[in-house]
Parts: sequence; structure tokens; C-alpha cells
Amino acid sequence: MQAKFPSESVTTLTDLVLPGETNPLNNLFGGELLARMDRAASITARRHSRRICVTASVNHVAFNRAIPLGSVVTVESKVSRTFNTSMEIFIDVWIEDRESGIKNKANEAIYTFVAVDETGRPIPVPPIIPETDLEKQRYDAALRRKQLSLVLAGKMKPNEATELKALFTE
Amino acid sequence: MQAKFPSESVTTLTDLVLPGETNPLNNLFGGELLARMDRAASITARRHSRRICVTASVNHVAFNRAIPLGSVVTVESKVSRTFNTSMEIFIDVWIEDRESGIKNKANEAIYTFVAVDETGRPIPVPPIIPETDLEKQRYDAALRRKQLSLVLAGKMKPNEATELKALFTE
Amino acid sequence: MQAKFPSESVTTLTDLVLPGETNPLNNLFGGELLARMDRAASITARRHSRRICVTASVNHVAFNRAIPLGSVVTVESKVSRTFNTSMEIFIDVWIEDRESGIKNKANEAIYTFVAVDETGRPIPVPPIIPETDLEKQRYDAALRRKQLSLVLAGKMKPNEATELKALFTE
Amino acid sequence: MQAKFPSESVTTLTDLVLPGETNPLNNLFGGELLARMDRAASITARRHSRRICVTASVNHVAFNRAIPLGSVVTVESKVSRTFNTSMEIFIDVWIEDRESGIKNKANEAIYTFVAVDETGRPIPVPPIIPETDLEKQRYDAALRRKQLSLVLAGKMKPNEATELKALFTE
Amino acid sequence: MQAKFPSESVTTLTDLVLPGETNPLNNLFGGELLARMDRAASITARRHSRRICVTASVNHVAFNRAIPLGSVVTVESKVSRTFNTSMEIFIDVWIEDRESGIKNKANEAIYTFVAVDETGRPIPVPPIIPETDLEKQRYDAALRRKQLSLVLAGKMKPNEATELKALFTE
Amino acid sequence: MQAKFPSESVTTLTDLVLPGETNPLNNLFGGELLARMDRAASITARRHSRRICVTASVNHVAFNRAIPLGSVVTVESKVSRTFNTSMEIFIDVWIEDRESGIKNKANEAIYTFVAVDETGRPIPVPPIIPETDLEKQRYDAALRRKQLSLVLAGKMKPNEATELKALFTE
Repeated sequence: MQAKFPSESVTTLTDLVLPGETNPLNNLFGGELLARMDRAASITARRHSRRICVTASVNHVAFNRAIPLGSVVTVESKVSRTFNTSMEIFIDVWIEDRESGIKNKANEAIYTFVAVDETGRPIPVPPIIPETDLEKQRYDAALRRKQLSLVLAGKMKPNEATELKALFTE
Repeated sequence: MQAKFPSESVTTLTDLVLPGETNPLNNLFGGELLARMDRAASITARRHSRRICVTASVNHVAFNRAIPLGSVVTVESKVSRTFNTSMEIFIDVWIEDRESGIKNKANEAIYTFVAVDETGRPIPVPPIIPETDLEKQRYDAALRRKQLSLVLAGKMKPNEATELKALFTE
Repeated sequence: MQAKFPSESVTTLTDLVLPGETNPLNNLFGGELLARMDRAASITARRHSRRICVTASVNHVAFNRAIPLGSVVTVESKVSRTFNTSMEIFIDVWIEDRESGIKNKANEAIYTFVAVDETGRPIPVPPIIPETDLEKQRYDAALRRKQLSLVLAGKMKPNEATELKALFTE
Repeated sequence: MQAKFPSESVTTLTDLVLPGETNPLNNLFGGELLARMDRAASITARRHSRRICVTASVNHVAFNRAIPLGSVVTVESKVSRTFNTSMEIFIDVWIEDRESGIKNKANEAIYTFVAVDETGRPIPVPPIIPETDLEKQRYDAALRRKQLSLVLAGKMKPNEATELKALFTE
Repeated sequence: MQAKFPSESVTTLTDLVLPGETNPLNNLFGGELLARMDRAASITARRHSRRICVTASVNHVAFNRAIPLGSVVTVESKVSRTFNTSMEIFIDVWIEDRESGIKNKANEAIYTFVAVDETGRPIPVPPIIPETDLEKQRYDAALRRKQLSLVLAGKMKPNEATELKALFTE
Repeated sequence: MQAKFPSESVTTLTDLVLPGETNPLNNLFGGELLARMDRAASITARRHSRRICVTASVNHVAFNRAIPLGSVVTVESKVSRTFNTSMEIFIDVWIEDRESGIKNKANEAIYTFVAVDETGRPIPVPPIIPETDLEKQRYDAALRRKQLSLVLAGKMKPNEATELKALFTE
């Protein structure tokens, strides 16, 4: 299967924070942001694989900065690494100051999607070739995250998680 | 006020068509597409003006192609021309074939926004400088559309709509 | 096909403006109003044609007056003219003062719908016979709008748009 | 306070049944219909009283007929009787056959609203004068329903519910 | 058919009141609470009958206490009595003070559901055996409510409503 | 501050999967499930702390089993461990077979919330005392997850993550 670049499936979802999407502190409700990231990431997964894709796991989402009512929010998702039938998707979220136009990083998240055929059975996806420094760095870290996920799920012994183990023993 | 380029405020809203957003033919409901275009265009208006912006009119929206359930839809909005306190925003809508990845133009629309201060009073916006051929062509046509809008609203006499009149008398 | 009167398919959608439907200025969000008008107009089109109807274009929507949170909004839609398989629908929007009960015109809009059969193919609709003065005036203007729309889309030469041309040359 | 007629506050909310509003049998979800009736009835209460109004109770709603996806649904609400600070609102729901255009009664419901001042305190509403036979019949029955509601809530002894008692003892 | 206990199908739906679900007084919108109660009650009906269930009527809902924005709301539904193919469901609604953690009763409601087969035809449901005092008291009152409902609908003569009649003649 | 038990803040949100909440495979949309878990978990955090709580991170969500349209879904959230101002919340998701009534585990997730005062500043929360075996096991694992999160965020050196390190070096 022909390898692809992250830039071929990057997805941008820029949208407003409307009153119906806020929490009692008048910031974007966490659940709504999780839903937007899931929508963007599922489009990236589909663009990369040209298959139907389903959310397999949400591995890490940090809510570092509240996103106030009326903000312009940009959700950008990219394939960070592929593993046979699954794709790790990295999502960056920015908010943009109306007066200065400056964009600030608000959150980031990592989702995993699996490509499936019409019957819901997993199916292989094209490999990814990282290009930028950030893409390469995220590509490398993805393997440790994968091992970690398997260890936490009891599907891999800690001793076999070579890359992950190195982090703690070197 | 410093002039700006359309590329400085272009907005991309890529999203899925979910079952709750379809009509009885299983295509994206017209009203939902109108709402998405309004959200993208209002962000473009805000990015250009760095002001609160309100929808003043929807001048023309053509629904040329139905957008089926499950589609990936990209709404892209750009300032096509400014007039003192108002901005004409051109919106292009594409759908993308899952298997081939090919994007097809589905619709286009023209919205007008007005920039307002905190009390809701109109306030001047920066001029726009079109760069690409398409941007220039839409910039020129915007004046005829503006005159047309004034004529239809009875706020300008047909005789005074010089550019528009030329279209019919040459 | 038996001609019909506008009063046979007039549609009234009276509803509240709830907090989840407002913009950052606490007025009804433009996209939500566009969606409500589309729903009312599509019912009028269906009542007139007794067919499935899809939005073909939004020709003109003027947002003259902001509609504050908590307002009672009445959207009323009527067939203004028919053209073989399409119907031009005129939509009037009023808001109503809670204390005095007085209704004020907030917006108006013109949508075009096409009647389709079960396979999505356009199908003829009954002619319309305007009755009131306002209906007659909108009926007459609809032809000019139709020509204008064809001219702007490059499907009719300005010289052939007789009624429209007259507006500028008389 | 000046009495009013039911026709002065009648409210019509005609809308479609879209896919996002259905239950697993592909009919309008009961909860969505309850919400639409509440919206229409609260507008009627407000039009009659020119006050902020809150739902006090839903006394009776019969779901006699399923409302399929794609239906045109008309919700019509009218004041049936007033009691100092409260208003009983009668709601009739029709669906309309697309091909024949014939309207069939689908449901009816009775809601009670209370008018309140800005602090949420109940405040008197104008009396109502029924005009049509149906309005008179519902006006008369409202007193029995009111007594019934008080008896069921333990706020009136069955013996004191004169009109209601007559129904069972005559 | 094997009788069941109310505790076997009790359903708890605890959720927040978000800004998009409030009325102009910043309390939970009546229509949204009606929808939540309908969702919980339909799950109880389904758990008791193990059938598809549709809302047949809403017999009584009292809105005694406004539920402010940001509240934690618990909707709890239980079968109070069964009648061949129908189930009366009693719903209690509590709100909970954030600081003290104390729960207060906000509303209660009575819905009736009918179990249907795949073609929508009513089908018998298991009998219910009340256990607690409150369950027994609601079970007894359900018969009077059933008779009342039949009398009001003109399907039973007041004279034949023995239990109900006793309330007024003793 | 007085320690509490997980059972004091457990939250149950049982709800249906309606058509408007599904993906193109007719299963519950991932984003909608993330939002429901966030709502339940934020209630648990609030009940434990009696403070306003905001989502700090989503540490792990596994989507093991698709949840089809029409399912009854139960989301149950419990505090698994507290750390000064933050709470780790464990969420279990079950679906229930309509015919047999059997519940199956569909997903689980771990969210972290921070308690804040009215100005948004973090504020200490009561300690938690696990009671059941599962609660104790999740309590112990939470420390390793916390260290992992700090290591991944570059806020702790792998060497200092004693509990986590032990997992790989023993």
C-alpha cells in the first residue's frame, strides 16, 4: 500500500463558541470540545485510509486553557503514526484573540481510529511518512504510547515494551 | 486603516454530515448548510475587521448538488469586497469522495456582514486587496451586486447604478 | 395542472428564541434564522406541489433588525411565483413586543425550491394565482429576479432579459 | 383587567419531522413533541398575559397517532380558561398528508402556565371569553379539571369539588 | 407472564442543566424536562416489558419548583401499575444543592407507555408487584387515574368508574 | 478536610441512543459518548468536592464495543483517586440487551477534573477512601497514571516516577 504524508489528510475545523455550547463558567463545555475533536479526527482518518473509520480510543487530552464564549476555535488534526489497521491522530486546538488576531494553543489531544470494511471488520491502512520535525517527534513518541496502551490493557508485558522501558531504565 | 488580503481572513470549516442533519432524501438539510456557511462567514468577517460582526444579508446561495449523509463537507469563506462598514463574503462548499479523495464543488454563496461596536453601531472596516484572478473577478462583480441590492431595496435609482446598467445597455 | 392560490400553502412557524440559539450579542443567530426560514419555506413548497421539494437557491435575505433572546418570532412563507418545476417562496419574519403585543417586521427572504420525484428528478408544479396586491407585486417582480439569477449564472444573455433590461433602460 | 378572546393569542407552530427528532420506529420522538407543545403553549400564555410565563403543569396529553419521519406537523395552542394567575392552554396537533393535503388530528394536550413578574412571583392575568362552541365546551370542562387537579394534589376535599362531584353522582 | 418488581426496571438519568437548555428566566426549559422524563420513562417501560414501547399519554406533570442553570438534576422513573398492554410510569425529579449536597424534590410526573411488536401492534406486558409503601399507594391510585382517563375520553360512563366514584360519594 | 467514599458521589446517567446521535454505521457517535461521559464525570467531581469543577484531561478512553441505534446506555462515574485540587474519575459504560435484559460492558474511560473557586482558581478537594476491591485497585493504579501523565508532559523526570518505574524494572 502506497505510503502517504500527514499533509495529505490534515483537517481544519474552525468554528465559533455559541451560548448553547458553554458550561456554567461561560467557557466551551469539555464534552462539546471532545465531540468537535472526534469529528475532525475521524475526517483525517478517513482521508488517510479512504475507509470508514471508528474511534478506537482517546489516549490523552489536556485541557490547559479555558475557551470563553464567543471565541473562534480552530481544531486541526493530523495522522501522527499508523499501525496496520489503526491510525494515531494528533489534534491541536487554538483560540484566536479577536482584537490582536493572535492564535494561542489551548489544548491538544491524541485519538486512535481503526479503519473498517462495510461489515465493520478492521482493514489495513497506508503507512505514514512524517515530514516536519514536529511530525517526526510525534511519530517516534507514538510507539511508546502504543506500548503503554497495550501494557495498561494487560495485552503486553512491561518487559516486552522495549521503547517504553528504555525511558525509565536509561 | 491598513488594507488586508483575503488570505489573511480565509476560514475553513470541514465537518461531517451526521444523521441528525439530513432531510427526508438523506441529504444535508438546506437549513443546516446555511447555518454552517453563516458560522464560517462570520469568522471571516471578524478576522478581517477584528470587530463583532452581524449578518446583514444573504445575497445569493445556489444549491447545485445534494450532499449525502456521511459526506465530508468543506466550507471555505473569504472576503470578496468591503464597503465602509460592510464586508461581502464569498463562500465555496466542496464535498469529497471517500474512495477517490476527489473534491467537487457543491454550492456557493454570498453573505454580507456589518462590523459593529459594543453598542451595536456600524463601524468602518479595513479595505481589501484582491490577489488571485478569482479574487479580482469577485471583487469587480461585488460592486454590481451592491448596486443591484440597493436598486431592489429601492434605495438607489436604476439610472444611478452605472456598473449594473452597463451590463444591460452595452 | 390545476392552478392554486398562495393562501392554500401559506405556512406559519411561530417559536421562541432560546439561549442556545443566540450569538454573542444575545440576538438570534443568523444561521438559526436561515434554518427556520428554510423549514417553513420547504413546507410551503410541499403544500403547493404535494411533492418532495429541495432548496434550489436562497436569492435574497435581508437582516434588518436584530431579534433579541426571549423574542417571539413568526416566520410566514408563501409561494410568490412558479416556473415549471420551481417555486419562488417569499418569507416574512416578524417579532412581537411582549408588553404591547405589537408585531414588527424584522426580516424578509426569498428562497427557491424545486419539486422532485422519488428519484430526485425535477417534476412540474401547479401554477400560482396571486390575489392580494402584495402577492401580485411580488409575482411581477419574481420574473425580473428569475432573469437576474440566470444572467448572474451566465445562463441568459443580458440582452434577452427583457423585463430586467427595461428597469435600467426606461 | 380587560378580558380577551382565545383568537387573540392563538399560536401556530408548523414544522417538519427531521431524522434527528425520531424514535427507533422512525416516528416523532414523544419528548420532542412535548417540547414543541410547550414552546407553542408558552407563547400563547405570553400573548394572553403579556407577562413572562412558566409551565406549571401538563395535565393531559394523549398520543393517539404516531407521526412519521418527514411529516408536516402543526401545533396550535389556545387559552381555554384562566384562573387568577394561571392559564389553561389547550393544544391540538395535526399531521398533513403530503399527497392529498388532508389534515388529521394526531394528538391533543392540556398545559397550565402561570404568569410571573420579573422576580418570579405570580401575577394576575386577563379573563378569557370563549367564542366558538368548542372553546365554550373546553372552558366549562376546565373547571372540572382544575378541581380534579386540586383533589389529586390533596388541596381540595372531594366533597367541595362541586362540578366534578356532579359528574359521578348525577 | 412472570410478574416483576418496580425495582427491576427503575431508571436513573442524572444530568446537568447547560446554558442551551434554559428559558429566559435562566431555569431549565419546561420542554427539555418533559423530553428527559420521556427518555427515562421509555427506558423503564422497555426494561419492564422487554419490548419496543411508545408514549401513550402524559397524565399529569407538576412543575413545582424552577430548576436553575447549572443544577444537577436526577430523573428517576418506575413502573407504578400495568394494564394488559400498557404501563403507568411514575417519575420523580430531584435537584441537588451543590454546597450542601441536599436533594430536593422538584417535580413529579405520570406517563403511560404501550408495548408494541415490530409492526406497532400492542402486546401484553408482565404484571407488576409493588413492594414499598409508596409503590403500593401509587399502584392503588393508578386504577382511579385509569378510570378518570377513560371517563374524560368518553370511553367509560362515570357510573361505571367504581373506584373513582367512591372518592366523591363516600 | 473530611475524607469521603466513592459511593457518595457515584453518578448514573442512563439514556437512549436516538437517530440524531449516530455515525454512518448507525452506532452511537464517538463524540456524543465522550460528551455524555464528560457530563456524568463532572457531576461526580462536583458531588465529591461541592465545588465548580472543570475538565483537566481525558487520560484514557477505550471504545471496545460499538453501541447501536436504539440501545439503552448506562454511564456510571466514580472518583478513583484525589490529588490535592484534582480528582481522577473512572467511568464505566454498559449497554443492555432489550430482549434478555443482560448488561454488557461497552467502554471505560478515565477523566481528570480540577475543583475551582468562583474566580477559576484551583482549590483543595476532600481525600477519597476506596472501599471495594475494584475501587482499591483503581486507586493504586491512579498514582502510576498520574506519574505517567507528568512524565509525558515533561513535568517529572522518568527517574523520579518511582511507582511507574517499578512496573518496568522489576
